[in-house]
Amino acid sequence: MAVPFTRDEFEARDAADSLAAFRDRFVIGTDEIAIYANGNSLGRPPRETAPRVAALIDQWGHELTAGWGHWIDLPFEVGDRLGAACLGAASGQVAIADSTSVNLYKAISAVMSAAGSERRTLVVAADEFPTDRYLLQSVAEQHGAELRVVPTADAIVDAVDDTCALAALSLVNYRSGELLDLAAVTAALRSRGVTAVWDLSHAVGAVPVELDRAGVELAVGCTYKYLNGGPGAPAFLYVSAETQSRLRQPLWGWFGQRDLFAMGDRYDPADGIRAWMVGTPNIAGTCAVDVGVALIAEAGLAALREKSVALTSAAASLAQSWLEPLGATVASPADPEQRGAHVAVAHPRAQQICASLVDERLVVPDFRFPDVIRLGFAPLYTRFTDVWDALDRTRSVMEHFR
Amino acid sequence: MAVPFTRDEFEARDAADSLAAFRDRFVIGTDEIAIYANGNSLGRPPRETAPRVAALIDQWGHELTAGWGHWIDLPFEVGDRLGAACLGAASGQVAIADSTSVNLYKAISAVMSAAGSERRTLVVAADEFPTDRYLLQSVAEQHGAELRVVPTADAIVDAVDDTCALAALSLVNYRSGELLDLAAVTAALRSRGVTAVWDLSHAVGAVPVELDRAGVELAVGCTYKYLNGGPGAPAFLYVSAETQSRLRQPLWGWFGQRDLFAMGDRYDPADGIRAWMVGTPNIAGTCAVDVGVALIAEAGLAALREKSVALTSAAASLAQSWLEPLGATVASPADPEQRGAHVAVAHPRAQQICASLVDERLVVPDFRFPDVIRLGFAPLYTRFTDVWDALDRTRSVMEHFR
Repeated sequence: MAVPFTRDEFEARDAADSLAAFRDRFVIGTDEIAIYANGNSLGRPPRETAPRVAALIDQWGHELTAGWGHWIDLPFEVGDRLGAACLGAASGQVAIADSTSVNLYKAISAVMSAAGSERRTLVVAADEFPTDRYLLQSVAEQHGAELRVVPTADAIVDAVDDTCALAALSLVNYRSGELLDLAAVTAALRSRGVTAVWDLSHAVGAVPVELDRAGVELAVGCTYKYLNGGPGAPAFLYVSAETQSRLRQPLWGWFGQRDLFAMGDRYDPADGIRAWMVGTPNIAGTCAVDVGVALIAEAGLAALREKSVALTSAAASLAQSWLEPLGATVASPADPEQRGAHVAVAHPRAQQICASLVDERLVVPDFRFPDVIRLGFAPLYTRFTDVWDALDRTRSVMEHFR
Repeated sequence: MAVPFTRDEFEARDAADSLAAFRDRFVIGTDEIAIYANGNSLGRPPRETAPRVAALIDQWGHELTAGWGHWIDLPFEVGDRLGAACLGAASGQVAIADSTSVNLYKAISAVMSAAGSERRTLVVAADEFPTDRYLLQSVAEQHGAELRVVPTADAIVDAVDDTCALAALSLVNYRSGELLDLAAVTAALRSRGVTAVWDLSHAVGAVPVELDRAGVELAVGCTYKYLNGGPGAPAFLYVSAETQSRLRQPLWGWFGQRDLFAMGDRYDPADGIRAWMVGTPNIAGTCAVDVGVALIAEAGLAALREKSVALTSAAASLAQSWLEPLGATVASPADPEQRGAHVAVAHPRAQQICASLVDERLVVPDFRFPDVIRLGFAPLYTRFTDVWDALDRTRSVMEHFR
């Protein structure tokens, strides 16, 4: 199949890209040869991150414990900025703390603790990200509940019934890149009495999300993909204002206490999102997240999404033209409205192809068991020519694996 | 009462201090006026921390996802170094991850899940650090168990009976500085069928701890006090080799999975301490902890403890001589063998005295409700003259609050 465009046209698109200058805001090795198509696994470091963290360490050295005067609210201040820039969340509903997994545990445990005795089933898709599935298994076991596993997330709405308490699902699937309809799924589940707990890890910072408008109750996500917070940066937790007082999370730590320093006898949870904190939050990590969020806010999520759709559409077209004749299949939805910021290419020898791409320093994709080459194109720093070159190089490697 | 030494003698002790050079290894503001007596709340930043974190960010930028080749084992490598330098723990038993509170939740939930139906009581002291008490409350509620509260930790051994599953207790009390006998208490509880879950936050890096030798099963602690990891740095969790396979922690996240990237259907916990991980660990924070641990290792815990005992003994002497005539009481044990690295001074107007010491930039202590002035003297960077000056300044403020 003929390719509907040329590399020259991609160069022209880069030249016309209103977001192109953001690439220079990131640390990129001058010796970098391979095309990085894995920003959906670990985003690049913003140039501002190292000085921001150094300033925090300097502040720590000079202000010592008095620094907590600034730091104690930082998880909520950065949470608010993340909520405004990326989540469609009014202030007071997002905290930066813990890992995605720990936040998910808090959310699903809280729902199960409040669920009626007739609702003892949790629902998840078999192709959900592993940590989500495993955490549901542990909470199901702890609550003597049943875990119902359906093949894919888009089967969840039809699979729930009045024995179900919650469904946990990713807005963007980590393998296929499928993007669900946040508002429609949330409403459909809610109409059946089921709480949707959303994992936004593969969506946040790349796909516009309107949590308040969609009536979402609980959402979690990581900050090291499109938010560029760094390896294992603190995650986020969204709990809607209404849900904050209705549910109670299970890890009663001192940072969730109403009066942190009164050190009273009984745990008395704080109002609002603070009740969902546990231990002392990591401040350097929260600063790094803040830097990443500020870049997304500056670029604007609408512009990022527009570029992202163009990048993934181009990648899907090239994959169709070049890779499908070589035995590959584009495994992401064709409609860009149903696709996040990465494209999955299935091939029976995906694992070897990915290994060759990495070993020969051509492309850095991610292999996803058993047969997926995952190509992520973070719109903040990925060029159209990167998409061309990544697919072109993948083609040349794939030719050896026919 | 006459003071048994002079400031000149303290200057001489500083001059003879074999650890004195370590002070220069820390970021200390040239404009610093107040004596910092709060390193037991938040330690100072090592000079090496900022460059180490900057190097990590640089590595992240250049290696991108390939960096995980180095990072994935870092929580255990730093855990091993912490275990060797500070905990008397053979390798494979310590991980750096999550917060102290989350780690405590894992530990106490694991014990309760395995406890027999006849052992449904958890024991804690009323003067235990708040997050420990609150987490025990939450776990007790979740397991339908009873929480037995005794006045102080040294009453725990006598308070347990064959209905008790676990006792959670701090090796060094956060208020009084009382240091328990780790081996004796652990053995006494074990002989009654009760698991001791130790919080080492106020001990680690200041007091020699021999977890393996004491037969400890579970211990947690923070890294931002005497380990100087920074505000909210990742905490640690020790699970003895024998306990790792006997107990199962409740948060089944992907970093606890045997094969992280196979992404199999069922949670299948890894061998060893890895099964106690949950989500993706924070790597920059773990690097910062590593820097702090390396400094302790270099100084040597025996030398640090020797200096620490000298510092707290001097502080207690000065407090007795100068402050007790002003209405204060030394509220820490008199025997240095029963005292950690801070000294508590009780005074009815402690809160106002602390506020004045801070406001007038004389001393940075910590106020602990209702009546304690807590003076911490981290041995790695605190000088004997700091102790003299801190007590001297406290005396001059206390004179106004007679």
